[in-house]
Amino acid sequence: MTSTPSDLAHPDHEAVRTAVAAALAEDRASFDVTTQTTVPPDQQGSGAFVFRAAGVVCGLEIAREAFRQLSPDLRVEVAYEDGSFVETGTTVATIAGPLAAMLSAERVALNFAQRLSGIASLTRQYVEEAARGGDATVVDTRKTTPGLRAFERYAVRCGGARNHRDNLQDGVLTKDNHLAAASARGVDLASVVRSARAGAAHTLRIEVEVDTPEQAADAVAADADVVLLDNMGPETIRPIVEGAPGVIFEASGGVNLETIRAIAATGVQLISVGALTHSAPSLDIALDVRPE
Amino acid sequence: MTSTPSDLAHPDHEAVRTAVAAALAEDRASFDVTTQTTVPPDQQGSGAFVFRAAGVVCGLEIAREAFRQLSPDLRVEVAYEDGSFVETGTTVATIAGPLAAMLSAERVALNFAQRLSGIASLTRQYVEEAARGGDATVVDTRKTTPGLRAFERYAVRCGGARNHRDNLQDGVLTKDNHLAAASARGVDLASVVRSARAGAAHTLRIEVEVDTPEQAADAVAADADVVLLDNMGPETIRPIVEGAPGVIFEASGGVNLETIRAIAATGVQLISVGALTHSAPSLDIALDVRPE
Amino acid sequence: MTSTPSDLAHPDHEAVRTAVAAALAEDRASFDVTTQTTVPPDQQGSGAFVFRAAGVVCGLEIAREAFRQLSPDLRVEVAYEDGSFVETGTTVATIAGPLAAMLSAERVALNFAQRLSGIASLTRQYVEEAARGGDATVVDTRKTTPGLRAFERYAVRCGGARNHRDNLQDGVLTKDNHLAAASARGVDLASVVRSARAGAAHTLRIEVEVDTPEQAADAVAADADVVLLDNMGPETIRPIVEGAPGVIFEASGGVNLETIRAIAATGVQLISVGALTHSAPSLDIALDVRPE
Amino acid sequence: MTSTPSDLAHPDHEAVRTAVAAALAEDRASFDVTTQTTVPPDQQGSGAFVFRAAGVVCGLEIAREAFRQLSPDLRVEVAYEDGSFVETGTTVATIAGPLAAMLSAERVALNFAQRLSGIASLTRQYVEEAARGGDATVVDTRKTTPGLRAFERYAVRCGGARNHRDNLQDGVLTKDNHLAAASARGVDLASVVRSARAGAAHTLRIEVEVDTPEQAADAVAADADVVLLDNMGPETIRPIVEGAPGVIFEASGGVNLETIRAIAATGVQLISVGALTHSAPSLDIALDVRPE
Amino acid sequence: MTSTPSDLAHPDHEAVRTAVAAALAEDRASFDVTTQTTVPPDQQGSGAFVFRAAGVVCGLEIAREAFRQLSPDLRVEVAYEDGSFVETGTTVATIAGPLAAMLSAERVALNFAQRLSGIASLTRQYVEEAARGGDATVVDTRKTTPGLRAFERYAVRCGGARNHRDNLQDGVLTKDNHLAAASARGVDLASVVRSARAGAAHTLRIEVEVDTPEQAADAVAADADVVLLDNMGPETIRPIVEGAPGVIFEASGGVNLETIRAIAATGVQLISVGALTHSAPSLDIALDVRPE
Amino acid sequence: MTSTPSDLAHPDHEAVRTAVAAALAEDRASFDVTTQTTVPPDQQGSGAFVFRAAGVVCGLEIAREAFRQLSPDLRVEVAYEDGSFVETGTTVATIAGPLAAMLSAERVALNFAQRLSGIASLTRQYVEEAARGGDATVVDTRKTTPGLRAFERYAVRCGGARNHRDNLQDGVLTKDNHLAAASARGVDLASVVRSARAGAAHTLRIEVEVDTPEQAADAVAADADVVLLDNMGPETIRPIVEGAPGVIFEASGGVNLETIRAIAATGVQLISVGALTHSAPSLDIALDVRPE
Repeated sequence: MTSTPSDLAHPDHEAVRTAVAAALAEDRASFDVTTQTTVPPDQQGSGAFVFRAAGVVCGLEIAREAFRQLSPDLRVEVAYEDGSFVETGTTVATIAGPLAAMLSAERVALNFAQRLSGIASLTRQYVEEAARGGDATVVDTRKTTPGLRAFERYAVRCGGARNHRDNLQDGVLTKDNHLAAASARGVDLASVVRSARAGAAHTLRIEVEVDTPEQAADAVAADADVVLLDNMGPETIRPIVEGAPGVIFEASGGVNLETIRAIAATGVQLISVGALTHSAPSLDIALDVRPE
Repeated sequence: MTSTPSDLAHPDHEAVRTAVAAALAEDRASFDVTTQTTVPPDQQGSGAFVFRAAGVVCGLEIAREAFRQLSPDLRVEVAYEDGSFVETGTTVATIAGPLAAMLSAERVALNFAQRLSGIASLTRQYVEEAARGGDATVVDTRKTTPGLRAFERYAVRCGGARNHRDNLQDGVLTKDNHLAAASARGVDLASVVRSARAGAAHTLRIEVEVDTPEQAADAVAADADVVLLDNMGPETIRPIVEGAPGVIFEASGGVNLETIRAIAATGVQLISVGALTHSAPSLDIALDVRPE
Repeated sequence: MTSTPSDLAHPDHEAVRTAVAAALAEDRASFDVTTQTTVPPDQQGSGAFVFRAAGVVCGLEIAREAFRQLSPDLRVEVAYEDGSFVETGTTVATIAGPLAAMLSAERVALNFAQRLSGIASLTRQYVEEAARGGDATVVDTRKTTPGLRAFERYAVRCGGARNHRDNLQDGVLTKDNHLAAASARGVDLASVVRSARAGAAHTLRIEVEVDTPEQAADAVAADADVVLLDNMGPETIRPIVEGAPGVIFEASGGVNLETIRAIAATGVQLISVGALTHSAPSLDIALDVRPE
Repeated sequence: MTSTPSDLAHPDHEAVRTAVAAALAEDRASFDVTTQTTVPPDQQGSGAFVFRAAGVVCGLEIAREAFRQLSPDLRVEVAYEDGSFVETGTTVATIAGPLAAMLSAERVALNFAQRLSGIASLTRQYVEEAARGGDATVVDTRKTTPGLRAFERYAVRCGGARNHRDNLQDGVLTKDNHLAAASARGVDLASVVRSARAGAAHTLRIEVEVDTPEQAADAVAADADVVLLDNMGPETIRPIVEGAPGVIFEASGGVNLETIRAIAATGVQLISVGALTHSAPSLDIALDVRPE
Repeated sequence: MTSTPSDLAHPDHEAVRTAVAAALAEDRASFDVTTQTTVPPDQQGSGAFVFRAAGVVCGLEIAREAFRQLSPDLRVEVAYEDGSFVETGTTVATIAGPLAAMLSAERVALNFAQRLSGIASLTRQYVEEAARGGDATVVDTRKTTPGLRAFERYAVRCGGARNHRDNLQDGVLTKDNHLAAASARGVDLASVVRSARAGAAHTLRIEVEVDTPEQAADAVAADADVVLLDNMGPETIRPIVEGAPGVIFEASGGVNLETIRAIAATGVQLISVGALTHSAPSLDIALDVRPE
Repeated sequence: MTSTPSDLAHPDHEAVRTAVAAALAEDRASFDVTTQTTVPPDQQGSGAFVFRAAGVVCGLEIAREAFRQLSPDLRVEVAYEDGSFVETGTTVATIAGPLAAMLSAERVALNFAQRLSGIASLTRQYVEEAARGGDATVVDTRKTTPGLRAFERYAVRCGGARNHRDNLQDGVLTKDNHLAAASARGVDLASVVRSARAGAAHTLRIEVEVDTPEQAADAVAADADVVLLDNMGPETIRPIVEGAPGVIFEASGGVNLETIRAIAATGVQLISVGALTHSAPSLDIALDVRPE
């Protein structure tokens, strides 16, 4: 008997290991002159990770790796799995072991966990708000922090949303600039779709970003698999969606916590939100330490 | 005849090159299936980077490197140097050259520039608000994005603030947890300061974080070079600062755009603000492309 | 006026640079004791790359990089672009410059060019043979040499074929083992397709590998976008393809130069051939050197 | 009591680890969208590696590492050690553990094992054929796949042959081009040998490649330690070898499964064969999976 | 109950692992043709590390890592911890396990241990000699071997001295050239100190190198935290030190085993000695092996 | 017309680039807080590298690279090529360009040049002293600084000596421990030589280290190509060498500037000296800067 495939596949251990090692090196955690001169290497202690605001837990595995790299004797016990929503004051994990290593790794561990929990928490708000409007799936964008994309996409999943393409290879999405480039060569939208279809691997769908209802109609006529409606209001979106029942539509642009409900109510299948990753504030998490 | 030493020393080229290469690889920009199948490699074009909100310019050199790595023929001309404040609608830089490479690098270039301009812009608000209260210097913290610290510290300088220590090696700062660790061993604050002084290189000052006026008095008595007053209100801070004129004081905790003016008015020399780097929203920058 | 998007996008320069540097290090080309003890560093010479067998040119840019890394003064002039078919005895490129560096880089340069030209040449035979049968597109597989995939896929394009998905991320392809895994959990093919559709980014099509006409019918009924018919003869393939006109079919397994024509004649849209990359013999290329 | 030194020293673990990690990254095995969306991470299974053709086993340790990197819980049991000759249909190893990781690593594991077993199997044919002619030792060349030399040399040893020098540092071998370079400077073969002898470390022998019996005589007269007879027929080789009993001779060029027997019969000590590594077809190995 | 903070913090394991791996690769220890052809991989043995001269033990952990990387079955037992002074003939550690791996790693292990023990031993002589003169602390400089700084600083600590700043970031030290640069711009020493104070993080002290008593007086007047007296004799140093009791003074230049005692007797707080790291001869350590 | 092959082949540019980049990172030269806060980035200056002791110039190319990496505008002009002997006070090179970058790179540049010039200078003494005794060639050993072997071997060549094998792959040298290992298995010296001959590539000679005249006779009888006489006095060496005219002999152990002359007089062909690299003191080189 086995479970179902997980929606929350964690970034693989090697990616975690590498990112954490780079962050510890950046902080020169092995040269922590304060701790090395004031805390004996064999003093023990314990600590609690406390959420100082309500939100979605994310990044505890990565935090654990930061501690583990500075000392294999530091043991982190997770009380709430990534993806859990917790209230202010909740202890989401505990740690025990050599105190000096704990202090040297603390900042790096929290820098990861606070950022990812911040993204997961904001995502949850978008997902809940969209659900009040309709069945649209909230997805992220490629507007992620350089170097942290796999982690931030994971945080988005922890928050209950879904991922758009990961990078420029696993999806065809012609943007306004691609169409403008074609237009300057005297090539129309339908030809662009044909070129993409002919040149891309047959495993990829063809998605086309459009700015107007007329362009949307062109894209549908050109047999695009997915049409991205950029910066259109709900009243513009709705008739487009209703008029092409076999096509997948994605809305983007001008999406925020005030507007997403109405956009979801248009019947659009997907809503992509850049703010999930480019503008989520950190969530406040404290490590309360108890030395022995 | 030469200028004065710069406050805005840019991260060195190798750091820029490496971070940009990693970001382009993460986005698999060399495998941009959309552009490769729809835009000929020899089509030319130009573009303008337009600020869609008022703010401080930051990160244009890094954006330039992203384009340069995909094509040495892409030329970026900067109109407003990093650190400039510009109004909504300003074109801060232009680009010209092969269109396909421009489109493949666009997202990575903007991901850097939007994040760094966001930090610089928020920093500027803090600096201006603090200046209304007094002469305190606003400084950042180590609460930066893993992997991007050198860039984010640069953005903080572009916004008019100054940097705290860069990492765990270039400053001694005993935190509450270091003191608690000592206390558990029966060691008092004065002994901790002595240990740090004896163990650290003589090129480093000793800074001590304290939570109460009593601890602050202990730190002053122990001859700490700098005392960090954590989470204290202006009325608590003022008498401490006034009572120890030869000591440098830093305030932190609970600092936001509403409170910083009053904190600056206490006479404290330094105010550190984690939000500068951990919670600045991206600034909206567009690349408007004109194909030829 | 610009050209059309290229079918032959070359692996990007950084990938070439890295692979060549690794190969030169592997051969310890900078420690070439023979050349260093017998050829003065300033002796000049020229050379000709001669095809000792007829075939398709591929890999000259990579060979050029090998020479360039050992001496920026080595200049390679290409007479026949990658993708050209040439007869036995053709000089496809010439080289001139410092002789010692030329000799130290020769083996690495040829190791790349001979392998890639071998793949391109074999691919061309498959493409020509398939064209005698019908309009099917010949595509490669992921059965490439570890570390050289981007180069070998390029060689396949030079030979006139097209690429399948590049890796496990840019295509969904459920294989027999995925279906067997599902079956062991009591999950049928249609549910597998639904799971993949729900979990994968909306930019990806869903392809299903099947072994029997019954499975093929299931896949079509489950709305798979592409159906891979594995190890079926032409007489089995033809009715499946003709019976589902809106579906894309790919044939694989048991494809060789004797069978591909008949398979192409079935009307199948795609034929994937592992041998293009896993079993192409090197093409014999000589560097004929003339010292000065 | 210990064994004798092994002829089959395996590439060291670090080299295996690095090559496998690069191959898994190339295949983006940690982003296997098909498996992640259709197979639960905790479903278990087993599998058998079956040789679909007779041949020499090689590369199982490397395949094992591929599985281990994706899941430390995948256990590979080897039934036939590298170097064993097995008949069609033989199960050479079994695997058990998490099914999803097994499927994500399968292609990389097989890409290594099929290529290396292909080389080992072809090598064995050459060795057996040469043995029918005489006592000559079959050796490989530097015509290996860039990045895989240590593995391919190991495969050659598994096939029963021996290795020539590994790279440009661990052997002196003046080729026709070195002699031509000298000749253009008015330097004769004997002087080239003297230069190499004077300049190379005293731990290296001096080998000279020659094209004619006259050159061979010159090389012998110049006291070369080893003389490489390039592209000569058996009737040319035999008298040269017989005429210089104290010298080591190597034959190369035009060696194939049809000619090697006669070359071996000339009494030459070494026969080098580029085809062992540059043109061996992959051996067909299947992973038959049984999900639980 | 815990110990006090250690003066001997060892370079972290990752740094050790990386440096050792690079050294083994440099020596191509995995391609040890002598050992591979003459020692069976399963032959066991033991060995003793014997000091052939009296001195301070240093680097045994690094040596241990070299053996461990070639075989996890090699076990090193340390008899004298790093920092111990031992007489000629002392066995400081023993090793047991596979003999072949032991021989392949031997040179790399000893290259580290001999160099670091040489530094530690020379340092001890300087420390003892200085102690005969006064209480001055002996410190090292940045004149270390490229790539080995962290290890050599550790050796200095093992020898009983202390470390100066680690690098150009964790200390401000204006040298003669900085002052000359300022002077050429018409800027005086006091302004240089002010610039450094204003621009550097507040966690750093300001140290000023001076060549004359007049400059020393300027530096004291400018409120420099530390003044480095370069190339001055004891009779010059003494009055400067006595004349500014609240300032920290460091002496450097012309310091050797003959002069350090008199310099220490001047009352100067710190004496920096480049020779500790740039000119310490290796200490002779042998690995006496006993095969089984 | 070309020159003869060089004895002084410089380590290749990539090796220089990598080692210098690592050294600058180790020194955090891009974070030089002193220079950044006191010297404007556009101030220019020049400088002279002055030998403060007589010796052999070595490492100027590497020093040049250190400056170039911090600023491409720094130009180094070399007055005395590597390998030149110069008197105290000689200016061996000059530099001009941005002063700040010059100061930030100075220490790294000098750390390389002082160490390598120290090795070259000591080597020259050994070579001159040996020449007074006879024709023996002085060679180095593998007792080099981890990470710097290629550079230190180059310094040895600059000093007029020659290199032994570079690493464990490019030479067979059975040491006392290999013979002891064999002996413990009941295998004699002659069998060890045969094993090595059979297992190593045919491009390698077989060298055997021996401790006694009896062992030396065994090695000669076993047809070893080279015999290394370890720790024997001149009177022991001479008869061995004279008794086996066709064999190459190398002396090692107990070689210093007092003994090398007599050893060279025995007629031995090679003398290897570990001290060349493991115990050469740095040569004092100053960078005298003149700001503009």
